[in-house]
Amino acid sequence: MIAEELAKKLREISIAEFFEKNKHILGYSNPAKALVTCVKEAVDNALDATEEAGILPDVMVRIARIDRSIFRIIVEDNGPGIVRHQIPKIFGKLLYGSRFHAIKQTRGQQGLGISSAVLYAQLTTGKPAVIISKTSPKEKACKMEIMIDTKRNEPEVVSESDIEWHRPHGTRIELEIVGSYVRERRQSVYEYLRQTSIVNPHAKITFIEPDGYIHEFERVSSELPKIPKEIKPHPHGIELGALLAMLKTTRASNLKKFLKEEFVRIGDKIADDILAKAGFNGREHPRSLSRKQALRLLNAFREVQLLPPPTDCLSPIGSDLIMKSLMKEFNAEFVYAITRRPKVYSGHPFLVEVGIAYGGGIKSDRIEVLRFANKIPLLYQQGGCALTKAVESVNWKAYGLQQSKNELPNAPAVVLIHLASTNIPYVSESKEAIAGIPEIVDEVRLALQEVGRKLKEYLDRKQKLQKKKKKEEVLLKIIPLLAKKVCEVLEREPVDADRIVARIMGKVHFERVVEGDRVRLRIANYSKAKRAFRIYEMCEGDVETDGRVIHASTYSTIVWNVELMPDDKIELEYRCKRVINRKPIVDGLDEEIVSGAETHKI
Amino acid sequence: MIAEELAKKLREISIAEFFEKNKHILGYSNPAKALVTCVKEAVDNALDATEEAGILPDVMVRIARIDRSIFRIIVEDNGPGIVRHQIPKIFGKLLYGSRFHAIKQTRGQQGLGISSAVLYAQLTTGKPAVIISKTSPKEKACKMEIMIDTKRNEPEVVSESDIEWHRPHGTRIELEIVGSYVRERRQSVYEYLRQTSIVNPHAKITFIEPDGYIHEFERVSSELPKIPKEIKPHPHGIELGALLAMLKTTRASNLKKFLKEEFVRIGDKIADDILAKAGFNGREHPRSLSRKQALRLLNAFREVQLLPPPTDCLSPIGSDLIMKSLMKEFNAEFVYAITRRPKVYSGHPFLVEVGIAYGGGIKSDRIEVLRFANKIPLLYQQGGCALTKAVESVNWKAYGLQQSKNELPNAPAVVLIHLASTNIPYVSESKEAIAGIPEIVDEVRLALQEVGRKLKEYLDRKQKLQKKKKKEEVLLKIIPLLAKKVCEVLEREPVDADRIVARIMGKVHFERVVEGDRVRLRIANYSKAKRAFRIYEMCEGDVETDGRVIHASTYSTIVWNVELMPDDKIELEYRCKRVINRKPIVDGLDEEIVSGAETHKI
Repeated sequence: MIAEELAKKLREISIAEFFEKNKHILGYSNPAKALVTCVKEAVDNALDATEEAGILPDVMVRIARIDRSIFRIIVEDNGPGIVRHQIPKIFGKLLYGSRFHAIKQTRGQQGLGISSAVLYAQLTTGKPAVIISKTSPKEKACKMEIMIDTKRNEPEVVSESDIEWHRPHGTRIELEIVGSYVRERRQSVYEYLRQTSIVNPHAKITFIEPDGYIHEFERVSSELPKIPKEIKPHPHGIELGALLAMLKTTRASNLKKFLKEEFVRIGDKIADDILAKAGFNGREHPRSLSRKQALRLLNAFREVQLLPPPTDCLSPIGSDLIMKSLMKEFNAEFVYAITRRPKVYSGHPFLVEVGIAYGGGIKSDRIEVLRFANKIPLLYQQGGCALTKAVESVNWKAYGLQQSKNELPNAPAVVLIHLASTNIPYVSESKEAIAGIPEIVDEVRLALQEVGRKLKEYLDRKQKLQKKKKKEEVLLKIIPLLAKKVCEVLEREPVDADRIVARIMGKVHFERVVEGDRVRLRIANYSKAKRAFRIYEMCEGDVETDGRVIHASTYSTIVWNVELMPDDKIELEYRCKRVINRKPIVDGLDEEIVSGAETHKI
Repeated sequence: MIAEELAKKLREISIAEFFEKNKHILGYSNPAKALVTCVKEAVDNALDATEEAGILPDVMVRIARIDRSIFRIIVEDNGPGIVRHQIPKIFGKLLYGSRFHAIKQTRGQQGLGISSAVLYAQLTTGKPAVIISKTSPKEKACKMEIMIDTKRNEPEVVSESDIEWHRPHGTRIELEIVGSYVRERRQSVYEYLRQTSIVNPHAKITFIEPDGYIHEFERVSSELPKIPKEIKPHPHGIELGALLAMLKTTRASNLKKFLKEEFVRIGDKIADDILAKAGFNGREHPRSLSRKQALRLLNAFREVQLLPPPTDCLSPIGSDLIMKSLMKEFNAEFVYAITRRPKVYSGHPFLVEVGIAYGGGIKSDRIEVLRFANKIPLLYQQGGCALTKAVESVNWKAYGLQQSKNELPNAPAVVLIHLASTNIPYVSESKEAIAGIPEIVDEVRLALQEVGRKLKEYLDRKQKLQKKKKKEEVLLKIIPLLAKKVCEVLEREPVDADRIVARIMGKVHFERVVEGDRVRLRIANYSKAKRAFRIYEMCEGDVETDGRVIHASTYSTIVWNVELMPDDKIELEYRCKRVINRKPIVDGLDEEIVSGAETHKI
């Protein structure tokens, strides 16, 4: 019988065998990428470990070339270390970890990362991973060589010993892999570490390249980011199957307790509200609920207004820091960033942050997209990532940029997108691209539109200023000629052309008339607003004035506080030997609306 | 101690838990896509099962709407059925299957597909999958309701019974899921089934939509595709870790036997060659090899010339069938397709097939890419797929198409790409996009360039013809006027302008002169080749001629066989009451080189 024949071939597949055959899914599709992925997994772990332990991270990454295509990777951190009996499973078993079941923002979330790097090393060079770990300055470090028994997905300890290690505590991993080292490219270890340091300003990262060149990514802030707190699931977006599973395994003795204890954002009142809407009295035993009754409960969840999940399970970068980083990295003429409020998808809280930098030092034709997920830079699969697609789907023409439909806009600009979540929906285990979850895409689009509006305001203002400036330039050329001609014809004395331009352009105009030791300052406010400002004049010798005088050793400064209504004029008079400053100095007015004086911040 | 605290949280993660939380990785990122994915997994299984059993597939897909967002999916096949004790694990355990360890081309390869659909159903509606399976007409069918215990990744049989079922053998699965049904879109169940039927012409697929509308995708060919054979791994591209594992587990008693028994394409002579190059005598026990010795063996593999892996582990569609399908689907003016020879990546044989269709019924601005992997249509993640990137990376300008750099070319064309392999390197478990494996990308590019060159030839020919036609049109307008004028000036009789044009254009020119019942056919070969053809004239009444006469009831047809050398002329004369055909009819000459007659295939 054919079915019997076919049945004989059926077998269980270990997850390690699966990934051994499909290593590209974990990010090992070619030697260059494999090297970046190994470093990434180790560094992500180092940052998570130090952060959880409240330690300012000090991470060392070293890559050494062993042979043409064989590299040794060493990553060392000052984290809390790993207790001896857990070392084998953490590094030698896929799907093992502490962060999968916890609802809070972490870099690692799958229990796959570092063990996959060990698997790749073993597959390509046959060498075990060498781990050194120390949990206390009082103890020796533990050194282990670990391999993975792929048929069983269980660790194999090749050797174990106690050694002296210089660090008081921390973890060190050494891997030997088939790889390829690239330096300049956008997808490189250097670029990964650079972007990591942008969004982790509290981390110090030292990177030693194969040729011995040392990069130091210094700590910019000594403040540890707030440690995200673990929370319970949020009722919005939870699915029936998940709810049924929760009802089965809860320790709560009745339905009301179940709601209050197992979910976040359900208090006494809301629990009653949900129970009433679902037709329960709250004393039912959770395990007694049928599928249909659970469905009623689920529908009631959706009918009640709930607060979004608490933000303390998430650790955003913060709009200030994003703007600072963008400004520092790109020297742009305009930057703006926002952090959106947390939202939920399928019960997982998430939030979106978006920053934009425009012009200045940015010379690219097309907008560059920097993607981050839980503070990890995403270097690969830009085209397949929902964050990129969100950028493409926004109508940037509305915000003053050129764009072909559904493509990245053409503009000298950089967009930074950070998705923070208790569960980042990566397209695959290689954690390179975000899946197109509608709730997330919507949030990213809204964030982009928000920064887009700010950009538009800036571009409009810039354009307006440019127009105004152009108009002024034209006027400044024509009016003096015109004025001269008019005066000649009318046989009048020549007028001050600058004042005429200032009047037309709506500026505050300053004119200094000096006759011997008598100086008069004429000030006219041709703008449409009340203006308050200070005027400074610097003089040699004795001074006679109604302004306030500040004496220095060689000269005196006179200060007036002036307030002028629109179309108001004033004349200030003083006497002195000689005025030093070329033009009057004004404080409190924008350069754009001042004529005949210099603006200065004092 | 912090390390101890952290250690307490460490846990093993079951693969079912992992995918429950990351269901988008398996293709369930939104309700519309989830519905397509469920159907896809069930249909792929049905096609694999029937193919393996040598049965012409007859697959029924039915989708019924249960509630606004809840759908029931039923997929039924006439395959061999599944033996009772295997049903729970096949549908209720992730990473369980028969195709993972076999080196041959199959649709399923991970042991994840159908169980993931069961997991999704259970997660969203809480309902078990209902399986009916019958392995022989003599027995009753077995009906089981299956759920997955996600914490353990083990099946739970909710109910089991024997029932009567109309089919002699086969499998039926029923799932209830939260989904969304779309019809017209490119990413729909209909489109998936349509494309599936294009590349599986031996399959009959019946699709019943929620509104009851029935689509029948008929079987085009009753020939079963050749069943791919299982092979051993190919030495090229195998990695050190994999080789070490093989050396450990082989039953071969010495190294030479190991090489000959465990690999494909290694015979006696090549084994000796490899052993000599690696410095072995062949009598070493495989298990005794050190890592360094294994590395020597691996390097020797790469130094010897080996045949590519046998093709019988792969089942290509075939270039003929691809061309036929493209022609049928798109009614194009030009189609071409090729099947490349098999190649290897990381020890996995693969081959690439590419077809192109241009113009005619295709009206799109941009080239459309149809992607297939092991005869499964890939509907999602086009942007993130290495096949798409390969199309973008080709310089299509060299083949006569417009293209912005590294984008899909702008042309009314369709490109079909089929990757067949014993192990398709999908980007993720959702099997939507191919990873950028360099060997595969290279092959796809070469294939595209090959069809590109053919397209270029066609476009050049077309352009040449168009130019010629244009020239002719111009001549046809001017020459009669010119001729008339010349004749007037010279006071000659008007000449036949058509003949002049025919001479200039290098055609075979026909002229019929009728005087009473006397008809003369003047034929001149102005082309540069010898021409052999037949001429037909159809007449009423009695006929007098030296040609062959075929009598019909109301008219007679005269046939001449004519052969003319370049610049030769001939005159045929006959008598009849009346000629019926407007112009002489010619058989054996292309329309383009005929003037004054009609070409016709008889």
